[in-house]
Amino acid sequence: MPPFIPPFSDPSKTVSSLSSERALVSFPVESLTRFLHGDNLDRLRSIRAEIERIPEVFSNADKPFLSRERSYVRALEKAAKLVEMKKKHKWSEEEMLTAMMQVGDSTPQFLHEALFIPTLKTQLSDEQQKTWLPRAENYEIFGCYAQTELAHGSNLRKLETTATFIPESDEFEIDTPTLNSMKWWPGALAQSSTHCAIYARLILHGKDYGVHPFLLQIRAPGSHAPMPGIELGNLGSKIGFNTIDNGFMRVHKVRIPREQMMMRNSKVTRAGEYVPAKNAKMNYSTMVAIRANIVRNAGYALGQALTIAIRYSMVRVQGGDRLPSQQGQELKIIDHGMQRYRLTTSLERASSPQFEERDPGRGGPYGGGENTILHLQTSRYLLKTILQALKTKDLSAVPVGLRSALQGGHAFEDERCTIAPGQPITGDALIAAYWHREARVLQEVVTKVLKDGAGEEAFAKSQVQMVELSRTHGEGMLVRNFYEAIAKEEQTAREQGRDPSKGFLPVLKMLCELHGVHRLLEQFGDFTLDGYVSRQQIVWCKERRDQLINLLRYELVGLVDAFDISDNQLNSAIGRYDGRVYESLYEWAKYGMSIMEKGSQGGVLGFDEVLKDVLAEGRRINGAATPKL
Amino acid sequence: MPPFIPPFSDPSKTVSSLSSERALVSFPVESLTRFLHGDNLDRLRSIRAEIERIPEVFSNADKPFLSRERSYVRALEKAAKLVEMKKKHKWSEEEMLTAMMQVGDSTPQFLHEALFIPTLKTQLSDEQQKTWLPRAENYEIFGCYAQTELAHGSNLRKLETTATFIPESDEFEIDTPTLNSMKWWPGALAQSSTHCAIYARLILHGKDYGVHPFLLQIRAPGSHAPMPGIELGNLGSKIGFNTIDNGFMRVHKVRIPREQMMMRNSKVTRAGEYVPAKNAKMNYSTMVAIRANIVRNAGYALGQALTIAIRYSMVRVQGGDRLPSQQGQELKIIDHGMQRYRLTTSLERASSPQFEERDPGRGGPYGGGENTILHLQTSRYLLKTILQALKTKDLSAVPVGLRSALQGGHAFEDERCTIAPGQPITGDALIAAYWHREARVLQEVVTKVLKDGAGEEAFAKSQVQMVELSRTHGEGMLVRNFYEAIAKEEQTAREQGRDPSKGFLPVLKMLCELHGVHRLLEQFGDFTLDGYVSRQQIVWCKERRDQLINLLRYELVGLVDAFDISDNQLNSAIGRYDGRVYESLYEWAKYGMSIMEKGSQGGVLGFDEVLKDVLAEGRRINGAATPKL
Repeated sequence: MPPFIPPFSDPSKTVSSLSSERALVSFPVESLTRFLHGDNLDRLRSIRAEIERIPEVFSNADKPFLSRERSYVRALEKAAKLVEMKKKHKWSEEEMLTAMMQVGDSTPQFLHEALFIPTLKTQLSDEQQKTWLPRAENYEIFGCYAQTELAHGSNLRKLETTATFIPESDEFEIDTPTLNSMKWWPGALAQSSTHCAIYARLILHGKDYGVHPFLLQIRAPGSHAPMPGIELGNLGSKIGFNTIDNGFMRVHKVRIPREQMMMRNSKVTRAGEYVPAKNAKMNYSTMVAIRANIVRNAGYALGQALTIAIRYSMVRVQGGDRLPSQQGQELKIIDHGMQRYRLTTSLERASSPQFEERDPGRGGPYGGGENTILHLQTSRYLLKTILQALKTKDLSAVPVGLRSALQGGHAFEDERCTIAPGQPITGDALIAAYWHREARVLQEVVTKVLKDGAGEEAFAKSQVQMVELSRTHGEGMLVRNFYEAIAKEEQTAREQGRDPSKGFLPVLKMLCELHGVHRLLEQFGDFTLDGYVSRQQIVWCKERRDQLINLLRYELVGLVDAFDISDNQLNSAIGRYDGRVYESLYEWAKYGMSIMEKGSQGGVLGFDEVLKDVLAEGRRINGAATPKL
Repeated sequence: MPPFIPPFSDPSKTVSSLSSERALVSFPVESLTRFLHGDNLDRLRSIRAEIERIPEVFSNADKPFLSRERSYVRALEKAAKLVEMKKKHKWSEEEMLTAMMQVGDSTPQFLHEALFIPTLKTQLSDEQQKTWLPRAENYEIFGCYAQTELAHGSNLRKLETTATFIPESDEFEIDTPTLNSMKWWPGALAQSSTHCAIYARLILHGKDYGVHPFLLQIRAPGSHAPMPGIELGNLGSKIGFNTIDNGFMRVHKVRIPREQMMMRNSKVTRAGEYVPAKNAKMNYSTMVAIRANIVRNAGYALGQALTIAIRYSMVRVQGGDRLPSQQGQELKIIDHGMQRYRLTTSLERASSPQFEERDPGRGGPYGGGENTILHLQTSRYLLKTILQALKTKDLSAVPVGLRSALQGGHAFEDERCTIAPGQPITGDALIAAYWHREARVLQEVVTKVLKDGAGEEAFAKSQVQMVELSRTHGEGMLVRNFYEAIAKEEQTAREQGRDPSKGFLPVLKMLCELHGVHRLLEQFGDFTLDGYVSRQQIVWCKERRDQLINLLRYELVGLVDAFDISDNQLNSAIGRYDGRVYESLYEWAKYGMSIMEKGSQGGVLGFDEVLKDVLAEGRRINGAATPKL
């Protein structure tokens, strides 16, 4: 056979492609990376370097080839090594969370570090924390968060698990009385955890006080066997996160000491008296923090996807060889118009959440997430603010951009978009357009809700419109935040004596303009329906979008490099930094075969077990009728 | 522990939900099933019944829990059993393909039956077929289709594998000379196949005659070891189709007899003379047929997804319990407006391809597939027709709906939509609207292409616009086909003395109207930009969409039942016909645990290997500081 990596038919096609692309980027990538990551960058990189010095544990290369069970064990190995490193390097908890992000793989440790420990901190009293926090922080116990039940998820009011106070023994009896009330889905519940925070209805002297958190031991030390009365199991494979053991749990009348009710907020005394929390919502604060984390991860995942897609599109050539201008050579696929359009208009989406994160206090729909419940919550908040303002005639709580719509009449109807054909589109014009669109949608929803009585039933009848309102609100907010972040950085540059018309800012401004224009065009009917944006302005927006996509063509690789995702985090043969995609695919597949299951007789998997007999029977049937092969 | 399936807190919530829903369906589901499946239904059902009589082979219940390797072996077992059944029941080849669909799982057999054998039939000469067809049809050999290379996919002109004629020995020498030219992706290549159809550049006396098909033996009979000079491997896991062994192959100067060039179309004589095919495209006919198959499968997959989602949405209750009208009871999630909206507007999409299939001769973009290359081919065909018509002034080849746009002037500009607010929206109004929209988009693309010189470079510059044109063409075609299929069935009903205003037709007409209205609203700017559809008409379309969604509410379960997908094909705990979703989830997870890998000491997986030491170290650190657990 030829050597391990045979020569390319034309080496210039791959190896050098990314370096020649990088030479064309107009801005210093490192400065954009610093802008995107902020002050944390150096610490993050040094932690990542520590991790990537131990490839025998932290290499993700085997991930695509492992069974669900092996993926889980490998993830535990990574978690265990992080625990060791945390102790050795004396990492703070925040550094530990940073380290977990740098691994480029999810592990059951996430549930312990980011859900269980924060729950102990926010739900246990100071006294209780003294007992439990050292155990959790030194990994004497490993914990998870058991809230969702088989038949009950988002609507926490209807959870069925009970914790009944037994005055005689000063205990609670935890019970999942029905199939539907079994805990279902919690990560790290199936195999990893020794303890969990369990949410159950507090029953005192026959009266139901609603859902509260308790601490429950679920596995015995030493053997890791389920505790008596507790049945644990694994849900099986999922679309994602197969490194984590999502599980189920049935609890049959298991007693715990009263002190294992988490009593930082609500309490039960020895006499069985209930002392309510000052704010009942505090019982769920951990879950709210986790949702913000999901948004951050979504932005990161999109950044990974774009890094892979853009790098590969600059290495892979295909078609276009019949174009006279190509003289028989194929085009890089990034230079096919449709591919460039798709990737560039996705890149602005991947970049924008990075800004939103920096201003988390602002509220809103968590960066355009599709989760209907979050949309409805956002929209409900907006509508309640508006309905209150209409009642009191006090518009001070209403965002300025929406006020003209509420005042109504010509002032709003006659508003017209200020986009000027032939010129770059200004942030002011785009921001105003998104406000106007949101105001128009708001008018429609408010009219409908008022017609239906403005109560809960009215909201329930307007879900589709409310989701639309929330979507328009979120999209407008992203555009405003993107422009604000740029303006702020321009100010910083000027204060530091740098020229804001140099470096990465002009490129980021183009990306920001593209963001605003492209989202407008995606739903342009929203903007033209009432005549706010004219047909001529739409034509110009399309031309400008094409211009911006072309202007950004040679910045793309720099923009994704600036996300600063390492090859091990990316774990992609076709997305790797050096662009050696074909060698990588081949070597990686061969490595995968080396750890793949063999046939039962040591031969080809499937042949020994099944195909051998099928083919032998075929030979028997054909017999002498066909010549021997 | 309580018994295996403990009682529900409220049994009425689940078990009876689907039967009570089914009681409300207005039409006979069986008659719609017959309409959707046509005459093949009874045969299909009897084959499915044969298959489902053998659950020990054909049950798909273990699928979610298996490793990639085990999934593959299980798929081979299903394939082998089908081979046995084919011989026993003397199934025709068409019946075998039907049987493969009824299994509800993909197997490597698909490549043999649907790609390899058809390639033998369309590419081998009659003489060659006598030698090879019996071998393939009796499974003495097992084959696949090796066309795509590591660096070459859709652009077949650039494939690099060579087949060089060696006059001395009357052989071809097959070679993949570079890393980039390795065959990469073919299904069933890695482990299953003994032979493949390999596409390679024909080289005669140093001259390159382009890509042609050859028959290559890749594994030895008996041992199944790769033939000398051939390296075979498996790509590893994929997002889907992990039951199939997609692989790679390097071929290092392997000789085959000249007779193993597939000579039905092009030929090479003993003297090394080339005899070209009458139509060079015939060399690729199998691949074109497979694309149509992909569209059919996409419609089937969407039907499966909707069956699961709609049934589950009628069993699962959540939230809404604070609505005064609900008196503390939670709503079925189908009765949340946003969920009903999403599912109903997806259902019309799942239903429409069924009709399109019935008229495959029509061409077009294969039912709205997102594949850019198919879009560009469709659009290129349309544009070439139009440009030719503009040149010759002969519009006869141009679809009638597009002619007014080409004649231009007031006739087109002054067209107005005939949707009448307050009344059901007619098929004529919708069809005309889709034609008008397509014509407007066409005008824009033609103008742009003409400005850029109307050649290949002009097409290359207009990819984004061409994809838009193809999309508008496909959407219009779906609306027309849907209405045509209904009109035809109404005619049939009248001819057979049935009343077309009874049965499933009124429901299907609502679904068809919803299809047209919803797709219009999704991109309503396309229709309003030139004033064709008015703002008032859009308001009415939205109201009508809401009406239709409400009118269809109690038909939904009947509409998905009519797809007639069996529980084993669906393989979904939450989508099963009887609605017992929670029991099923629990039993299925427990079954999965019974076949799951155990820990190395027979205990909990992960604990023996990793966690034991982590927790022991935690206990050691905490030592006497914390009381014993």
